[in-house]
Amino acid sequence: MPANKPVNLGLIGAGRIGSFHGETVSRRLVNANLVAIADPAPGAAARLGETLDVETAYTGVAELLSHPGLDAVIIATPARFHTKILVQAAEAGKAIFCEKPMALTLEDADRAIAAARAANVPLQVGFNRRWDQAFAEGRAAIDEGKIGAPQLIRSLTRDPGPFGADPDRIPLWTIFYETLIHDFDTLLWLNPGAKPVEVHAMADALIRPDAREKGFLDTAVVTIRFDNGSIAVAEANFSALYGYDIRGEVFGSGGMVTMGDVRRSSMTLFDGNGVSNDTWRRDTEHFVHGYTAQLASFVRSVRNRELTKGPTGTDARNALAIALACIASVSKKQAIPLN
Amino acid sequence: MPANKPVNLGLIGAGRIGSFHGETVSRRLVNANLVAIADPAPGAAARLGETLDVETAYTGVAELLSHPGLDAVIIATPARFHTKILVQAAEAGKAIFCEKPMALTLEDADRAIAAARAANVPLQVGFNRRWDQAFAEGRAAIDEGKIGAPQLIRSLTRDPGPFGADPDRIPLWTIFYETLIHDFDTLLWLNPGAKPVEVHAMADALIRPDAREKGFLDTAVVTIRFDNGSIAVAEANFSALYGYDIRGEVFGSGGMVTMGDVRRSSMTLFDGNGVSNDTWRRDTEHFVHGYTAQLASFVRSVRNRELTKGPTGTDARNALAIALACIASVSKKQAIPLN
Amino acid sequence: MPANKPVNLGLIGAGRIGSFHGETVSRRLVNANLVAIADPAPGAAARLGETLDVETAYTGVAELLSHPGLDAVIIATPARFHTKILVQAAEAGKAIFCEKPMALTLEDADRAIAAARAANVPLQVGFNRRWDQAFAEGRAAIDEGKIGAPQLIRSLTRDPGPFGADPDRIPLWTIFYETLIHDFDTLLWLNPGAKPVEVHAMADALIRPDAREKGFLDTAVVTIRFDNGSIAVAEANFSALYGYDIRGEVFGSGGMVTMGDVRRSSMTLFDGNGVSNDTWRRDTEHFVHGYTAQLASFVRSVRNRELTKGPTGTDARNALAIALACIASVSKKQAIPLN
Amino acid sequence: MPANKPVNLGLIGAGRIGSFHGETVSRRLVNANLVAIADPAPGAAARLGETLDVETAYTGVAELLSHPGLDAVIIATPARFHTKILVQAAEAGKAIFCEKPMALTLEDADRAIAAARAANVPLQVGFNRRWDQAFAEGRAAIDEGKIGAPQLIRSLTRDPGPFGADPDRIPLWTIFYETLIHDFDTLLWLNPGAKPVEVHAMADALIRPDAREKGFLDTAVVTIRFDNGSIAVAEANFSALYGYDIRGEVFGSGGMVTMGDVRRSSMTLFDGNGVSNDTWRRDTEHFVHGYTAQLASFVRSVRNRELTKGPTGTDARNALAIALACIASVSKKQAIPLN
Repeated sequence: MPANKPVNLGLIGAGRIGSFHGETVSRRLVNANLVAIADPAPGAAARLGETLDVETAYTGVAELLSHPGLDAVIIATPARFHTKILVQAAEAGKAIFCEKPMALTLEDADRAIAAARAANVPLQVGFNRRWDQAFAEGRAAIDEGKIGAPQLIRSLTRDPGPFGADPDRIPLWTIFYETLIHDFDTLLWLNPGAKPVEVHAMADALIRPDAREKGFLDTAVVTIRFDNGSIAVAEANFSALYGYDIRGEVFGSGGMVTMGDVRRSSMTLFDGNGVSNDTWRRDTEHFVHGYTAQLASFVRSVRNRELTKGPTGTDARNALAIALACIASVSKKQAIPLN
Repeated sequence: MPANKPVNLGLIGAGRIGSFHGETVSRRLVNANLVAIADPAPGAAARLGETLDVETAYTGVAELLSHPGLDAVIIATPARFHTKILVQAAEAGKAIFCEKPMALTLEDADRAIAAARAANVPLQVGFNRRWDQAFAEGRAAIDEGKIGAPQLIRSLTRDPGPFGADPDRIPLWTIFYETLIHDFDTLLWLNPGAKPVEVHAMADALIRPDAREKGFLDTAVVTIRFDNGSIAVAEANFSALYGYDIRGEVFGSGGMVTMGDVRRSSMTLFDGNGVSNDTWRRDTEHFVHGYTAQLASFVRSVRNRELTKGPTGTDARNALAIALACIASVSKKQAIPLN
Repeated sequence: MPANKPVNLGLIGAGRIGSFHGETVSRRLVNANLVAIADPAPGAAARLGETLDVETAYTGVAELLSHPGLDAVIIATPARFHTKILVQAAEAGKAIFCEKPMALTLEDADRAIAAARAANVPLQVGFNRRWDQAFAEGRAAIDEGKIGAPQLIRSLTRDPGPFGADPDRIPLWTIFYETLIHDFDTLLWLNPGAKPVEVHAMADALIRPDAREKGFLDTAVVTIRFDNGSIAVAEANFSALYGYDIRGEVFGSGGMVTMGDVRRSSMTLFDGNGVSNDTWRRDTEHFVHGYTAQLASFVRSVRNRELTKGPTGTDARNALAIALACIASVSKKQAIPLN
Repeated sequence: MPANKPVNLGLIGAGRIGSFHGETVSRRLVNANLVAIADPAPGAAARLGETLDVETAYTGVAELLSHPGLDAVIIATPARFHTKILVQAAEAGKAIFCEKPMALTLEDADRAIAAARAANVPLQVGFNRRWDQAFAEGRAAIDEGKIGAPQLIRSLTRDPGPFGADPDRIPLWTIFYETLIHDFDTLLWLNPGAKPVEVHAMADALIRPDAREKGFLDTAVVTIRFDNGSIAVAEANFSALYGYDIRGEVFGSGGMVTMGDVRRSSMTLFDGNGVSNDTWRRDTEHFVHGYTAQLASFVRSVRNRELTKGPTGTDARNALAIALACIASVSKKQAIPLN
C-alpha cells in the first residue's frame, strides 16, 4: 500500500457501537476513509451514511465485501453473527476489526482464527480497556515489575443506569458473553502469561428480579484462579446510577496499581452539598480517545500489512473460554476447572 | 455507678494489640482507669504496667478477675483462649470487651453469648472498622437509603508488608479466623438485615509458597451470596508493601459508597517522581481514633449498664459462621451453603 | 510536679472556642483537670461548668487566678482582652495558653512576651494548623528538604457559610487580626527562617457589600515577599458555602507540598448526581484531633516546666506584624515594607 | 466553501509549538490540510514538511500567503513578529490563528484587531486552557450559576522543570507576556463580564538569581481586582520539577470550582514508597485534546466563514492590558489602576 494512501474501511452493522466506530473513522482518523456501510435493516446503512458523508450503503455483507477498493471491515453486528461474517470477510481477503465477542463457542473462535490466518489478514478484537490511557499505564507498570508478581486482581464493568432495556430481548448469558468478556480480557492482559485454571461464578437478576425465571442475569461476580497462583475477581452490573464505571486493580508482591475513575475530569464543584464531580455516562464518552486509538492502531496494521498490536483472535478465544466456564459454573453451581 | 466514677478495667493479654488497648485506656480515655494487667508470660504484665503507670500485674486470669473494684475486662489473648476467659469473666460478673475472633467454633460462640447473657454483662467484640469515621459514614448513607438496595459489596484487608512472621507459628486458617473475620463482620454490617446463604473461598500461600504444604494460607478471596440477592467479595493478603490497606465498597440499586484510603493524610508531595502520598503502616495508626471510640463506647456501656452499641456476641457468631464456611469451602473445593 | 499529677487548668472565657477547649480538657485529655471557669457574663461560666462537671465558676479573672492549685490558664476571651489577662496570669505565675491574636499592637505583644519571660512560665498561642496532621507532615517534608527552597507559598482560610453574623458587631480589621492571623503564622512556619519584607493587601466586603461603608471586610488577598525571595499569598473569606476550607501549598525549587482538604473522610458517595463527599463544617470538627494535640502539648510543657513546643509569643508577634502591615496596606492602598 | 472541502492551512513558524500545531492539522484533524510551511531559518520548514508529508516550504511569509488555494494561517513565530504577520495575513484575506501573545503593545493589538475586522476574516488566539475539558466544565458551571458571584479566583502556570534555558536569550518580561498571559485570559474568561480595575505584581528571579540583575524574572505573583469586587491571583514559575502544573480555582458566593490536575491519568501506583501518580511533563501531552479541539474549532470557523468561538483579538488585547500593568507594577513597585 503506497504511503499516505488512506485505508478504505467498510462498516458492517449500523447500530449504536457501529455508528460510533463509523463516526470515529470519518471524523477522527485522518488516514482512513469509511467507504461503505452495510446493515440488513432497510435504510439503516443509508441513514448513517448520510450523517457521515458516506455515499454507499448495502443491506448485504457480500455486497459490501465486493465494494471496489475495500481494504478492511469493522464488524459491529449482533454477537451471534460475528463469526460467520468474520470468516466471510477473511475469505474475501479483507482485514478485520471485530467487536467482542468474536464468537460464542470455542469452535467458532477457532474457525475465526483459522480463517484470518489462512487469509493472512490482520484480525483485531474490540476490547476497549487496553486502549485507555490509565489501563495502558497500569499494564506498563506491571511489565516494568513495579508491583512484583500479581496476586489479587480485579476488573469491573458497571453499565450506566437506569437499566431500560427489555430483558426478553437480551440473549441469555449476555452478562458473560458481552459484558464480562471485557473484564476477562482485561484480567488476562493484566496478568501477562498466566493461564486461568479454575472459574467460579455467582450471578443473579437483581435489577429485574421479575426476569430471573427466564434466565435473565444482570449482576455477576466471577472468581478466577490462575496458574501463577493469582486470584482474580470480575464483577458486572447493568445499572450503575452514577455512570459508566470501569475499574481495574492489580495487587502484587511488590505493590498495587489501580486504574479507572468514573469522574469525568478534574473539574470539581464545591457547594452547599459538599464536594462533587460529574461522571462518565457513556462508554463512547469515557473511551472516546481509547476507541480512536484502537481504530488508529488497526488502520496502521492494515496499512503496514502487519500483525495487530491490539487484542487478537486468540485473545478473544481466551476471554471466551472464561465466559463459557462462568456459564457452566452458574448452571452447575460449582467451580469449573479450565485446562 | 455514680456519675463521673471512672470505670475500672483489667487487661488480659499484654501482646501487641493488648498493649495498645491498655495504652488507649490509660492515655486516651478520661473516664476509665486501667487498674490491672494479666499475662501468663512472666514479667510481661509488669513491664507493660510500668509504661502505663499500672501498678498491679498478674499472671493468672482468676487473680485479675478478683481485683478489687474491677468493672470490666479487655480480652486480648491469643484467639484460642478467648471463649474460656470470656465465660470466666462473665461468671465473675465483669463486663467484657473481647478481641476478635470471640470463638473458633459455633458452640463456643454460643457458650460465650449465653454466659454474658446469664451474667447480664455487656459483651462487645473488637471489630475495628465499625468505629472508623469513613466506614461509619458509609453505613449511615446506606441506612439513609442513599444507595438503594445493596447488590455488590466488597471488603478487603491487606496487612502491611513485608511479611516477616514464621508461618510455622501461625495457627491454621488464621486468614479466615483472624483476618477476614473483620471483613465478614463489615460485610454483614454494611448489608443490614441480610443473611449469608452461600460461601465460596479460594485461598493460597503466595507470599510464602514454601509453607503451602503445611496448610499455611496468606491470600484469600471469598464470595458470599446473601438472602437479599446481594453478592459480596472479601479479600485478604498478609503483605501489602504499600501499607495497611482497608477498604469497603457497597454498590446498590441507587448508587455506591466507598470507604477507606491507605493515604495517611491530605499532605501530598509533588517532586521529580510525580505526585505521592505517605500511607498508613499500622492498624494502630490508621485506626487510632476508631480504637479509642471503640473503647470509649464500651466504657459508656459499662458505666450505664446498658447494651453495647458496638458489635455483640451474636455479631461475632455471624462472622464466625462465614469463616467456618470458608474453611469448608477451601477444604472441599466447593461452595458451601449456609442456613 | 510529681509524675502523674494531673495539670490543673482554668478556663477564661466561656464562649464558643473557650467552651470547646474546656471540653477538650475535660473529655479528651487524661492528664489534665479543668478546675475552674471564669466569664464575666452572669451564669455563663456556671452553665458551661455544669456540662463539663466543673464545679467552680467565677466572673472575674483575678478570682480564677487565685483558685487553689491552679497550674495554668486557657485565655479564650474576645481578642481585645487577651494581652491584659495574659500579663495578669503571668504575674500570678500561671502557665498560659492564649487564643490568637495574642495582642492587637506590637507593644502589647512585647508586653505579653516580656511578662511570660519574667514569670518564667510557658506561653503558647492557639494557631491551630500547626497541630493538624497534614500540615505537620507538610512542614516535616520541608524540613527534610523534599521540596528544596520555598518559592511560592499559599495559605487560605475560608470560614463555613452562610455568613450570619452582624457586621456591626464585628470589630474593624477582624479579617486580618483574627482570621488571616492563622495564615500569617502558617506561612511563617512553612517558610522556616524567612522574614517578611513587604506586604500588599486587597480586601473588600463582598458578602455584605452593604457594610463596606462602615469598614467591614469579609474577603481579602494578601501578598507577602520574604527575605529569601519567596512570595506568599494568604487569602480569606467569611462564607464558604461548602464548608470550612483550610489549605496550604508550598512550592519550592525541588517540588511542592499541599495540605488540607475540606472533604471530611474517605467516604465517597456515587449516585445519580455523580460523585460526592461530605465536608467539614466547623473548625472544631475538622481540627478536633489537632485541638486536642495542641492542648496535650501545652499540658506537657506545664507538667515538665519546659518551653512550649507550639507557637510562642514571638510567633504571635511575627504574625501580628503582618496583620498590621495588611491594615496599613489596605488603608494606604500600597505595599508596605517590613523591616 | 463547499461542504466537505477541507480547509487549506499554512503554518508560519516551524518551532516547537508551530511543529506541534502542524502535526495536529496533519495527523489529528480530518477536514483540514496543511498545505505549506514557512520559516525564515533555512531548511526548517522543509524538514518539518518532510515529517508531516507537506510538500511546500517557504522562507518568507509573503510567499506562503500567495500559496494557491490557501484559506488560513497559523502564526507560531516568536512573539515580536506576531502582529506584523497577522496584519499581512489579514490583508491577504486569510483567516488567522495566532499564538499568544497577539501583540506586545496595545497599539499593535488594536492594529491587529482592526486588520482582521477590515478583511472580515476569523481571528482566533491560542489561549489553550479554554479548550481543556476541565476548564470548559468549570466555566460551564459558573455560567449555570453553580458557584454564585465570583469573589476569589486563582490561575497558575508552572512550566515543567528543570529550567534549562539561557536567561540571556529570553526576552525581558517574558513571564508576563508569554506565560502569565494564559492566566490573565483564564481569569477574565472565568469571571465573565468583569473588568480588571487594579493590578499588583511581585516578581523575582528565584530559579536563576544570577540573572536577576539583567532583569530576568522566573517567578511572579499577580493580584488583580475586578469591577465586580472579585480579587484574582495569577502565579507563575518556570521550573516545576514535578511537571506541567496548570490549575484554576473560582470561589464564589455559592461555592467553588477547581480545575486542573498535574496527575496524568487515574493510574495510581502503590508501593514501598506510598501512593504515587505520574504527571504531565509537557503542554503538548497535557493539552493534546485541547489543542486539537482548538484548531478544529478554528477550522470550523474558516469553513463556515463565521466568527471564531475561541478567544478573539479583543480577548488577547484584554489579557495584554493586564500583562502591561504587571510590568508597570514591578517597575514602579506599586499597584497599577486600569481604566
